[in-house]
Amino acid sequence: MKVSPPDPELLSLNTATVREKWSLRETIEGCARHGVRGISPWRDKLAALGMKEAAKLIRDNGLKVTGLCRGGMFPAADRKGRQAALDDNLRAIDEAAALGAHCLVLIAGGLPSGSKDLGGARAMVRDGIGEVLDRARGAGIPLAIEPLHPMYCADRACVNTMSHALDLCDELDSGKGGALGVAVDVYHVWWDPDLKRQIERAGDKRLLAFHVCDWLTPTTDLLNDRGMMGDGVIDLPLIRSWMEQAGYRGFHEVEIFSARNWWKREPDDVLGVVKRRHQECC
Amino acid sequence: MKVSPPDPELLSLNTATVREKWSLRETIEGCARHGVRGISPWRDKLAALGMKEAAKLIRDNGLKVTGLCRGGMFPAADRKGRQAALDDNLRAIDEAAALGAHCLVLIAGGLPSGSKDLGGARAMVRDGIGEVLDRARGAGIPLAIEPLHPMYCADRACVNTMSHALDLCDELDSGKGGALGVAVDVYHVWWDPDLKRQIERAGDKRLLAFHVCDWLTPTTDLLNDRGMMGDGVIDLPLIRSWMEQAGYRGFHEVEIFSARNWWKREPDDVLGVVKRRHQECC
Repeated sequence: MKVSPPDPELLSLNTATVREKWSLRETIEGCARHGVRGISPWRDKLAALGMKEAAKLIRDNGLKVTGLCRGGMFPAADRKGRQAALDDNLRAIDEAAALGAHCLVLIAGGLPSGSKDLGGARAMVRDGIGEVLDRARGAGIPLAIEPLHPMYCADRACVNTMSHALDLCDELDSGKGGALGVAVDVYHVWWDPDLKRQIERAGDKRLLAFHVCDWLTPTTDLLNDRGMMGDGVIDLPLIRSWMEQAGYRGFHEVEIFSARNWWKREPDDVLGVVKRRHQECC
Repeated sequence: MKVSPPDPELLSLNTATVREKWSLRETIEGCARHGVRGISPWRDKLAALGMKEAAKLIRDNGLKVTGLCRGGMFPAADRKGRQAALDDNLRAIDEAAALGAHCLVLIAGGLPSGSKDLGGARAMVRDGIGEVLDRARGAGIPLAIEPLHPMYCADRACVNTMSHALDLCDELDSGKGGALGVAVDVYHVWWDPDLKRQIERAGDKRLLAFHVCDWLTPTTDLLNDRGMMGDGVIDLPLIRSWMEQAGYRGFHEVEIFSARNWWKREPDDVLGVVKRRHQECC
């Protein structure tokens, strides 16, 4: 399938990609220097810099916040743990609003320690999103459920398919909608035989973010061995074409966890490769 | 959910569980010594012992062959590669017949080297199964498509869900059926929110094998870090109850790839633990 190269203006950098060497301040300035227009910060980096300073720097450098990473992690072994998760999500919504973020990315959370009750954990996720949705709606911050790869089901996210994420959207945000949607990260969903159909089902209104990287073969670590676009097996232009056919016009956010390769390199070099690969391989 | 312990007579040992220390001969004799009634050999072990001797030993020791591992691996970069895969599958069907195996387990195969065409690979799997199905039917050996965990999509199997495997069954083996079904390995499918429904959909006729082990957290290796039943997060009695409600009355085959733990232990000790955990945790 031949797809025209993506608009370079739609490139966004998730701060995880350079997290080992750059602070949020350096990442913001790096994006500005390289002409990357979007940024998606993680909250630990945000806390280290301070909300006010981060918001000012991002604004002054003309960057769009394509998403804040991350809220979610709802399941917990007891009521106190679940309440702590809800409180943290409310704070995250406020932070996303303060940054003018396009969405708050939600990672479901996995099984509480010692539990084998997957159905129960999934119910906690549904209930948790339901609990914080009004605050998100009020703040004008849509929540983007990011289905994670099934290999993270036990310990990070028990929502692992677009279908499941969209079922949650339909259940909790019916009516006029717009408060809940999905973040499509190719790393997590590229394998899904139902992906095209679920992207169509989501449509423009539910497609809140599009994350790119690549799946390496072999993959040597479950968590931190993602590839740069073009170095793996994912047909990125094909998946982007599905997103665009469904009406998505947003950013392409590059999020690469790579302990053995990209995290070791100079972030300025990484950004150069990211920009080139975005044009050549996405 | 309270489920009564499984029938100990339904325990089967996949030879992969003890493959580092035991030959097929030792495994057969070990099963007999421990009162394990079922065995599922891998073809490399079978080749090492010799078909005739293996069939005789298995028969003499009163074991049932719950499945032969494995056929499949259909996608290849060129016609020659695809033909070699078909030829190998025909041989595997003959071997399964010579052993009186309950089924031949099929692993789809992944992307051909250098390819990103996942749809194309999936078409090769469908076509490949279609090509060998008549031989399987003639030999009275049902083919059991085993959906592998999505983390193996690129390099081992691009059929990753029960739903996809059952779609293939329905497409290729409609009518009276019985020539094609699925092998349900909890390691690969435990995370699937659609699992219960797909087991029901499969029903007795399509449920050809049930493999058990456990998912460890953390999992330190994508391939060889499976857990012993009870050491991980999978609700094995729940999944077994779904199998039984769907009419499955077959064996429970223990298949554990474990480089850091079980492969290092004395197989006689491993079999002792397998028997106990089958009763306590499955």
